[in-house]
Amino acid sequence: MIKRKITKQLDIGGVKLGGDAPIVVQSMCNTDTRDVDSTLKQISEMAEHGCEVVRLAVLNKDAAAAIKEIVKKSPIPIISDIHFDYRLAISCIENGVHALRINPGNIGKQEKIEKVVKLAKANNTPIRIGINSGSVEKEYLNENCSLSEKMLKSAQKNIKILEDLNFDLIAISMKGSDVLNTIEANQLLSNTCDYPLHLGVTEAGTLKNGLVKSSVALGVLLYQGIGDTIRISLTENPVEEVDAAYSILNALNIRRRGVNFVSCPTCGRTQIDLIGLAKKVESKFKTLDLPITIATMGCAVNGPGEARNADFGIAGGINEGYIFKKGEIVARVPESELLDKLEEVIANSYK
Amino acid sequence: MIKRKITKQLDIGGVKLGGDAPIVVQSMCNTDTRDVDSTLKQISEMAEHGCEVVRLAVLNKDAAAAIKEIVKKSPIPIISDIHFDYRLAISCIENGVHALRINPGNIGKQEKIEKVVKLAKANNTPIRIGINSGSVEKEYLNENCSLSEKMLKSAQKNIKILEDLNFDLIAISMKGSDVLNTIEANQLLSNTCDYPLHLGVTEAGTLKNGLVKSSVALGVLLYQGIGDTIRISLTENPVEEVDAAYSILNALNIRRRGVNFVSCPTCGRTQIDLIGLAKKVESKFKTLDLPITIATMGCAVNGPGEARNADFGIAGGINEGYIFKKGEIVARVPESELLDKLEEVIANSYK
Repeated sequence: MIKRKITKQLDIGGVKLGGDAPIVVQSMCNTDTRDVDSTLKQISEMAEHGCEVVRLAVLNKDAAAAIKEIVKKSPIPIISDIHFDYRLAISCIENGVHALRINPGNIGKQEKIEKVVKLAKANNTPIRIGINSGSVEKEYLNENCSLSEKMLKSAQKNIKILEDLNFDLIAISMKGSDVLNTIEANQLLSNTCDYPLHLGVTEAGTLKNGLVKSSVALGVLLYQGIGDTIRISLTENPVEEVDAAYSILNALNIRRRGVNFVSCPTCGRTQIDLIGLAKKVESKFKTLDLPITIATMGCAVNGPGEARNADFGIAGGINEGYIFKKGEIVARVPESELLDKLEEVIANSYK
Repeated sequence: MIKRKITKQLDIGGVKLGGDAPIVVQSMCNTDTRDVDSTLKQISEMAEHGCEVVRLAVLNKDAAAAIKEIVKKSPIPIISDIHFDYRLAISCIENGVHALRINPGNIGKQEKIEKVVKLAKANNTPIRIGINSGSVEKEYLNENCSLSEKMLKSAQKNIKILEDLNFDLIAISMKGSDVLNTIEANQLLSNTCDYPLHLGVTEAGTLKNGLVKSSVALGVLLYQGIGDTIRISLTENPVEEVDAAYSILNALNIRRRGVNFVSCPTCGRTQIDLIGLAKKVESKFKTLDLPITIATMGCAVNGPGEARNADFGIAGGINEGYIFKKGEIVARVPESELLDKLEEVIANSYK
């Protein structure tokens, strides 16, 4: 149903980005990059949740030096995020970083740009150009066009700097804190270039609002076939960003990680603690590595039928409940035994 | 940017639905409808969060009888949700309910259908036909077409029953627990009829997953101009459904309720407890009834500039922070005084 736009493919430390590769899930550490142990610990947690590439802020020489050990020990490829200072970029490439996020337009003199790009080329180190709504190039700020067009011009200026140096290992992001701006900017960009696009809403906010804004913006774009890698920005623990990314990809049937949970809203028909039960079901089976759908339904009358597309499910009754499989009730047990019985039924089905 | 499809307009107890009316936010109580006090209490909470129409499950005669008092005392219009039993529908109309959710195809004999429709017509009581992916009409279940097409056929069968009785106060919903199914079904329906559409993903799940699924599905549809009223189904307290509905409409700049909060993700540059601070800002200003954007940013270097589109903001430093207004720093205070200072700056701006 979704026809994806085919972009040029990059290789980020062995992870394919763009072309026909799966849409890559990435996130960013919020540790101090100089603190190698804490950073590696957070990377491992994120990787366990399915993060495939991770970005680290490199603010100074010590952070650039720390990249060396982090790259060696990290289970997933590393991208250094650098602003302005070309020496940090060079140091990160020398230390084996798998990609850079840096805007060549912000590096300064042409000779500095050339040094970075030459070294990146020699090491096959891709560069992501990152244009945010709040950091449009100054020369376009007062032009008589939309913010999205100003962002596009800023991206094109940075692309041209790299292309003029015969460098094409390019990925691009255009992130707005406004959803419609983010959608429009990426549509414009996707129509005008074939480099892989990194999608995200910047400053999306705390968990609930951030999930909604990111899901709406990325949902619209991914549904239109736009986007090769996604990063969900949340003012939260970064593992939430990784979970959210899979949740969006799963919603659009683009990628699947673990169990798909469905549960009905509670209503006047519900006679068990459905909210509590649905949370327990998620908590018990969230690490189960099977591509199945588990439903938690409030009533035995409508539940199994309504959820006949689910592989397994629980339907609540009064002090008891039913286990169903593909719409058919297979067990009836007291409420306290529902979770264990469901686990048993699932286990028996995959013996 | 979004061009909305113009549908026929209905009146649900004074709330306009469809046509050029604002997209209506609705939800459903999870109380026992027979418990009038609890139901009215929950309706009031939902109304305070902006819920404009509320649906109640009517499972039996006592629930239908309770509708009378609920309608009298509710601050917002009431929709009765009825399955199968035409007597409950008649009783609810007689008790002044503002709309019904009932599928005429499930009522039974033609004379029962006619009784309900005749009374609905006499009272100008709109009827929502609700087709869920799990409750496709049996006659279409084994047809050789997609689930979305089966849902469309089920909706059309129910529409025809009403139209054949010269009844056109119709709204329709097509909800799947699958996001792509929900999107496709509503696109098909919107292309083939002009009745107002009620959007939702059914069994969307618990809070985080439910927010993502609902935001992706409704985001794509609303962006295409489809949808006249939305209900976010969450296995959660229904006030969360109302907040989520506004959050989605706000993301697409369709409707605005209260403050728009933005905050950057934490990163290696952050030197304050940004997650805690962003949550405190949301909590302090969430009931502020001004259409402004407040940003909470991790650093004073990038924060005010990145968030120059925000009306007000906080940028963190080391043990202190900055208050900014339209990108300009207007105050520098210790971390503990940031919230009060921000409140003061906002208040002074609206004197």
